[in-house]
Amino acid sequence: MPVNLSAPVHADLLAINGVRIGVTEAGVRKANRKDLSVFLLDEGASVAGVFTQNRFCAAPVQVSREHLVQTAGAIRAMVINTGNANAGTGADGLARARRTCADLAALLQLKPEQILPFSTGVIMEELPVDRIAAGLPAAIAAAKADNWGTAAEGIMTTDTLPKAFSRAVDIGGKRVSITGISKGAGMIRPNMATMLGFLATDAAIAPELLQPLVKELADGSFNRVTIDGDTSTNDSFVLVATHKAGNAQITSLTSAEGQALKAALLDVSRLLAQAIVRDGEGATKFITVKVEGGKTEAECRLVAYSIAHSPLVKTAFFASDPNLGRILAAVGYASIDDLDQTKIDLYLNDVHVAVNGGRNPAYQEEDGQRVMKQQEIIVRVLLGRGQAEQTVWTCDLSHDYVSINADYRS
Amino acid sequence: MPVNLSAPVHADLLAINGVRIGVTEAGVRKANRKDLSVFLLDEGASVAGVFTQNRFCAAPVQVSREHLVQTAGAIRAMVINTGNANAGTGADGLARARRTCADLAALLQLKPEQILPFSTGVIMEELPVDRIAAGLPAAIAAAKADNWGTAAEGIMTTDTLPKAFSRAVDIGGKRVSITGISKGAGMIRPNMATMLGFLATDAAIAPELLQPLVKELADGSFNRVTIDGDTSTNDSFVLVATHKAGNAQITSLTSAEGQALKAALLDVSRLLAQAIVRDGEGATKFITVKVEGGKTEAECRLVAYSIAHSPLVKTAFFASDPNLGRILAAVGYASIDDLDQTKIDLYLNDVHVAVNGGRNPAYQEEDGQRVMKQQEIIVRVLLGRGQAEQTVWTCDLSHDYVSINADYRS
Repeated sequence: MPVNLSAPVHADLLAINGVRIGVTEAGVRKANRKDLSVFLLDEGASVAGVFTQNRFCAAPVQVSREHLVQTAGAIRAMVINTGNANAGTGADGLARARRTCADLAALLQLKPEQILPFSTGVIMEELPVDRIAAGLPAAIAAAKADNWGTAAEGIMTTDTLPKAFSRAVDIGGKRVSITGISKGAGMIRPNMATMLGFLATDAAIAPELLQPLVKELADGSFNRVTIDGDTSTNDSFVLVATHKAGNAQITSLTSAEGQALKAALLDVSRLLAQAIVRDGEGATKFITVKVEGGKTEAECRLVAYSIAHSPLVKTAFFASDPNLGRILAAVGYASIDDLDQTKIDLYLNDVHVAVNGGRNPAYQEEDGQRVMKQQEIIVRVLLGRGQAEQTVWTCDLSHDYVSINADYRS
Repeated sequence: MPVNLSAPVHADLLAINGVRIGVTEAGVRKANRKDLSVFLLDEGASVAGVFTQNRFCAAPVQVSREHLVQTAGAIRAMVINTGNANAGTGADGLARARRTCADLAALLQLKPEQILPFSTGVIMEELPVDRIAAGLPAAIAAAKADNWGTAAEGIMTTDTLPKAFSRAVDIGGKRVSITGISKGAGMIRPNMATMLGFLATDAAIAPELLQPLVKELADGSFNRVTIDGDTSTNDSFVLVATHKAGNAQITSLTSAEGQALKAALLDVSRLLAQAIVRDGEGATKFITVKVEGGKTEAECRLVAYSIAHSPLVKTAFFASDPNLGRILAAVGYASIDDLDQTKIDLYLNDVHVAVNGGRNPAYQEEDGQRVMKQQEIIVRVLLGRGQAEQTVWTCDLSHDYVSINADYRS
């Protein structure tokens, strides 16, 4: 059961002028399942993306990176399949990713370099390009603007719920719309981006701002969530701007209009990223790990991820057991060489658990127990060595995580 | 059920001349449980140790480090309690560790600095020093040389089996004996040493060789195993030499005699370290991860631990599911910036799974399945960029790991 997350209401999702989406059942891995989506972008749309830092990055990630460089400013479509990640597939996998781009380009009278391909699913199996090619005409025929809810369903793998959010924001007197979708529930420790996230806006914005913007959005959202510490081979996060809202073009991210747009985009990005954690494989708790008082943001992240990845901490959350020494142990092995344990404080929501590296004399086990039983928990660690802080979102480790991943392919 | 591990036969464990061990039930946390052990060392014994690199190291670790510096060459006893780790306990915890040393020193007519204290169990709770003090006379009274099997039982926490091994080796015509014990099953990713490991020999060896020797032994054994990636606050590994075997004193670790002793000590150390993995919480498989063809040993370790800590890899082993792309993904996110995926090969025992970063055309799913069903599995990754290699031992991630750690304190 996802933690405080429900399926989006399709009618609440805002269409983005200049983006049409079609979804179909191509039988990539299993029959009777929405598994092939195409995004069709009007001429003039700008596209930027960030991709996994995994050195075993998938073939579609390599091809999308290439096409974004070769065809900056002229990307016109994206094609996404589930059921097969086309990763760990060598030179043959690259050829198959290119073949899918060529097939779609032919149907749309575009060049293959104007297509970005995305795949998600099982690693190290051949992408069934013929089945994808056979499905493309139906996906194109189904394309329409108010189809984001269906697209969120079309990119799911082990997700139990589709993930989609919209926001409207006033930019210089014009209404600008933002809609995004994401997927992912396991192999989630994005490093640049998540499994798959797509965000679109009709805002007019200088195209050269899109790449720094998408990086900043990823760093503040998808790059701050973790489920199991496994960085995927296929993480991709793409931002599309269709420039059709009628606002005066935004030429700086630090202008009032730039900041308003960025804040709304970050809001949607965080909701999408947090939705992945709320729907994490086997998740029963949503945990915010906030590390304060560090010398640098980097060391705050080290500590936050050390806590968020500790199987012992995660199983204690699952059990609602305030065995909170496990959190101190994870702080201690976070590779900060000169960390002074006598300066460290620990809070669980409002409960002050540890002071100066030892148990707070006022701490009562029942107070810790009361917080641990909740579905949303904030862990705050104060390092007492500086002013930097960072936040990471994660979930617990339950029996269902083991069951889901022991049975994934069966 | 431990993986290919059985309890030691007490009569098979070699006494070490100059070491006597007593064990009693002090009721540290639970009644009717062997939880307090003392090691009594004859005058002249040499002692060296390595300890956790966790910055939240426990009070007894801090005190043992101090005493080894202050009293080099004159350590005469060790005291070990289970049930309470005396970690995350601040200044009060340090005082309690010192109090236990003082209590034992008074009974043995020694100075407190001649005692090394060790604790293992729950973190962030007060060490019950009065109960420990009350138990010490019985432990001393029970001390005898042929008591290693009982000592192995006396230091267990979530271990399902005691762990003890002996070896005899001929050094310059004299028979030298080696016996060691260890404990630990969770919070196991030793960084310098394991939860608790004690190794003793009657070999005569120059005392100044002991510290480099124990470091080398730890690096080749305890520092190469992982269960859950959680580096404990209490890891301690101690080597005692009583110099009573009658061999000519070993004055170099590179002499024939030094190498023979080191090989036998390393043999026992590895058995002890591997026994911890075989008895890992919930373990059903014993997995050797061997990374070859690296530029440096450090990068081989990065890759090996990335595989050994991946929850997705570990659950696939639990399920006997050859979902081996998960291994490639873990190689890819091991933080080697210039890793070239097209040079990587993967073997599972004798089965060649991936070649040049893609699926081996000759690889058959049923061959992978056959290996995955075994209890002992060797994962070999060839990086194709140098001559370095490293090996790490780990276990799978099962439902029982979650159950054990969700219920540990209840």
